[in-house]
Amino acid sequence: MKKIFSLTRLLLIALCAFFALNMSAQEQKTYPTQAPMQPAMSEYWIPQPKIVTPGTATQNAFLSAPSDAIVLFDGKDLLEWESSKGGPAQWTVHDGVFTVNKKAGDIQTKRKFENYQLHIEWMIPTNISGKSQGRGNSGVFMQGMYEIQILDNYENETYVNGQAGSVYKQSPPLANAMRKPGEWNVYDIIYSAPVFKEDGTYRIPPTVTVIQNGVLLQNHTTILGTTEYIGFPKVKKHDAGPIVLQSHGDPSEPISFRNIWIREL
Amino acid sequence: MKKIFSLTRLLLIALCAFFALNMSAQEQKTYPTQAPMQPAMSEYWIPQPKIVTPGTATQNAFLSAPSDAIVLFDGKDLLEWESSKGGPAQWTVHDGVFTVNKKAGDIQTKRKFENYQLHIEWMIPTNISGKSQGRGNSGVFMQGMYEIQILDNYENETYVNGQAGSVYKQSPPLANAMRKPGEWNVYDIIYSAPVFKEDGTYRIPPTVTVIQNGVLLQNHTTILGTTEYIGFPKVKKHDAGPIVLQSHGDPSEPISFRNIWIREL
Amino acid sequence: MKKIFSLTRLLLIALCAFFALNMSAQEQKTYPTQAPMQPAMSEYWIPQPKIVTPGTATQNAFLSAPSDAIVLFDGKDLLEWESSKGGPAQWTVHDGVFTVNKKAGDIQTKRKFENYQLHIEWMIPTNISGKSQGRGNSGVFMQGMYEIQILDNYENETYVNGQAGSVYKQSPPLANAMRKPGEWNVYDIIYSAPVFKEDGTYRIPPTVTVIQNGVLLQNHTTILGTTEYIGFPKVKKHDAGPIVLQSHGDPSEPISFRNIWIREL
Amino acid sequence: MKKIFSLTRLLLIALCAFFALNMSAQEQKTYPTQAPMQPAMSEYWIPQPKIVTPGTATQNAFLSAPSDAIVLFDGKDLLEWESSKGGPAQWTVHDGVFTVNKKAGDIQTKRKFENYQLHIEWMIPTNISGKSQGRGNSGVFMQGMYEIQILDNYENETYVNGQAGSVYKQSPPLANAMRKPGEWNVYDIIYSAPVFKEDGTYRIPPTVTVIQNGVLLQNHTTILGTTEYIGFPKVKKHDAGPIVLQSHGDPSEPISFRNIWIREL
Repeated sequence: MKKIFSLTRLLLIALCAFFALNMSAQEQKTYPTQAPMQPAMSEYWIPQPKIVTPGTATQNAFLSAPSDAIVLFDGKDLLEWESSKGGPAQWTVHDGVFTVNKKAGDIQTKRKFENYQLHIEWMIPTNISGKSQGRGNSGVFMQGMYEIQILDNYENETYVNGQAGSVYKQSPPLANAMRKPGEWNVYDIIYSAPVFKEDGTYRIPPTVTVIQNGVLLQNHTTILGTTEYIGFPKVKKHDAGPIVLQSHGDPSEPISFRNIWIREL
Repeated sequence: MKKIFSLTRLLLIALCAFFALNMSAQEQKTYPTQAPMQPAMSEYWIPQPKIVTPGTATQNAFLSAPSDAIVLFDGKDLLEWESSKGGPAQWTVHDGVFTVNKKAGDIQTKRKFENYQLHIEWMIPTNISGKSQGRGNSGVFMQGMYEIQILDNYENETYVNGQAGSVYKQSPPLANAMRKPGEWNVYDIIYSAPVFKEDGTYRIPPTVTVIQNGVLLQNHTTILGTTEYIGFPKVKKHDAGPIVLQSHGDPSEPISFRNIWIREL
Repeated sequence: MKKIFSLTRLLLIALCAFFALNMSAQEQKTYPTQAPMQPAMSEYWIPQPKIVTPGTATQNAFLSAPSDAIVLFDGKDLLEWESSKGGPAQWTVHDGVFTVNKKAGDIQTKRKFENYQLHIEWMIPTNISGKSQGRGNSGVFMQGMYEIQILDNYENETYVNGQAGSVYKQSPPLANAMRKPGEWNVYDIIYSAPVFKEDGTYRIPPTVTVIQNGVLLQNHTTILGTTEYIGFPKVKKHDAGPIVLQSHGDPSEPISFRNIWIREL
Repeated sequence: MKKIFSLTRLLLIALCAFFALNMSAQEQKTYPTQAPMQPAMSEYWIPQPKIVTPGTATQNAFLSAPSDAIVLFDGKDLLEWESSKGGPAQWTVHDGVFTVNKKAGDIQTKRKFENYQLHIEWMIPTNISGKSQGRGNSGVFMQGMYEIQILDNYENETYVNGQAGSVYKQSPPLANAMRKPGEWNVYDIIYSAPVFKEDGTYRIPPTVTVIQNGVLLQNHTTILGTTEYIGFPKVKKHDAGPIVLQSHGDPSEPISFRNIWIREL
């Protein structure tokens, strides 16, 4: 790179900086920014929730959708889903289930929802490897904003506010009710959307109840804001949003989903 | 009984009455009493909740108890139960279920509970008759005080705040998710006990979530007080209490229960 | 417009009406109506709330409006108010206060509100007469729907859920903090509007906090529905609504108001 | 006591210690600890709350205590208070007020409280100096655990979740309703104590409403845990606790208090 170019670039940067500062001086004072955090600052490991072995359930006799539900996946296709980056949802449908495709990124429902009862089943593959968060990591997001963690916590410990059924990095589950890899786990979720004030803060925060395999994990838990990997939850105004399923991109084998339906409340 | 004894008793009663009246005169003024009501005054019929056909479930592959649950009925005996009038619970155990015995009155758990997740299954017999409230009427009471209605509402309408899954005479269910007579209905109930002020009123009222056959009926509903047949709910201070099952004494065939377990929260 | 066109239109209307009626006949069965009640059925007298003498306050040194408040009455005119029957608010302004005009009926703010902090001062005249509800009866309605009772309860008992500071016929005040006739009573009210579901029921019910003369009367009380004179509260979908002041039409001398302001939240 | 007995006892203690250590080794693994944070990580500066000039109030005609209140300071002495380090409260009483004594540390009520309405008045001295948190910093703690910030925010900005009327480092106030140094600020606080589960977490979290100079700052705000200077709120089981006033030890002139009363709810 030539010197003359570098100088031009320097001038350009200076100009941009000048306008940016000038604008911010007109618009608002400069305030200290919140000091940056590290992920491990919002992770705590004790007390680990009690391990509860869920009741038996016939793995092939699952609860099908009530008559007023919108069926989001019935074993055949991903027509109700799209890529979160746009375009079709390119996860793999096979044998009545679909499986995360790491290369395709997150997928989300085409429809947007506010208040609902959601049923979703997921399975960790038997050949899973890794540990802590690096073992069967996915997640289901309410309104595209608030993650209920999906993870293989069967004989695999992690920070408790990042465990399966946690409101991620906020609220640990009341129990560890995992079925082992190769068996289907069921989430029954009751979600109430937030109501916002005009200034973008919550008048009424979102709440969530989560039942895994018949065991209560979240009991009308208040969600404090977005479920951030780093730092505190954030409160951002939003409208109805999709159900998002996370492609976490871990090196080990991907997890699968089946029997997804939603009832609007 | 001899006459002389009766006279003594009469005198004793008169004496007690005198002191009781005298004491109440000292303690409190006479205030107007709340005007008496009729049952139909707290019954409303519209709008009827939408009818939702629940998902299929294998009637013989029900969800068994999680490992930390107290099993209240496992198909064998009523050792966890007693008559609400005292003495053993004399309902009929047969074929892995138990059936209401009208002559024996209500039964209740020997244990007392406060906050919990309760699973209970009930079946209306195929030869049920009657209509409205007179058809398969029973109920499950939280802390012995607050009734979640059990009733055959399959093609049988009644006042909506007395329908299956209602907080009786308070809060109608969000849906009618009945299975038909001869099939098992499942209630999954999440209950939070009230917290009382010293004056006996609620500091925090009780709340309840009810799911019938996988369909949400009550969504963290606030319970306003006791579930009275006549008049307004009453707020009465109480401690931990039993799960009570109601023997309603209708003329038609009695209903049955199975697979009852509870997880304290 | 020609006659022939009018006839066509008439026929069209008749046809529509026929189908509409027919459809409604198919859709809506006749259900039993809720049995009518008497007012005294929703009135209870015990326990009477404790009598609390409020702190002294200079009657001429009241708290004026914060800078972001909308002043609803500043002692001069009723320009922010109108008759609830339409037309100008014809209550009597004099000496920096205004006084109920029985013939003019209720008045209400021209503006409509949802969530707010309301300050309002009211005075029972020294020559008040009558007793129970017939003594200085008025009321202030949130969103035109939910009444916080105004009444002279200074040495005047009534049913407690109709006492000054009650959510009328729902929630009695925590105390009786009345100043005597001729002195100004202050209500500071924090009100949160309900959020409705599409079916017209509450997703989030309204709540209210009431402080009278510095004494807490309602502590984030849930409002169950409209504050009916007869029978149970009703839940009706509504938008932002006015502050309404009630002209109760009692035979005795009318009450006065001053220093009314509101801060939207 | 004889030597031989002491030896027996020593052995017994050693035995107990061995089993205790052994048991804890079985029970408790070593988990990663939460990464340490810096104070600035939990401080955010925007958006600054709107500045609201409170209504005028006669500075010498304050609201005195209702008849059922416990008067915690009536202008004469600190008999209701003690040092948080033990011993008498050695702040300075003069002219009907008391003033922070930096050397004496925090003071707290001898009585312990749970649910209450608290009235407290505080004044920043006219010769205050410093800025941000270093200007008139004190605080009033609910149950000795949860701080409502006291600070001179009159023309002095700081991080908004540390501003006067904030739940410290949790919830910023809805407005900046400061009176200027030399004038009395009034806090009216309605506080509800938490209810704990047996495991030490909240069944019901604490909530607080704060009104400063007649302006609502906190509207039934949920308190998430202790108000930590560094890091996330902590949830610790506790009983009834004192009202604590903080001696922050800033270099500038100390603040004063007067007219403190509390009504238990």
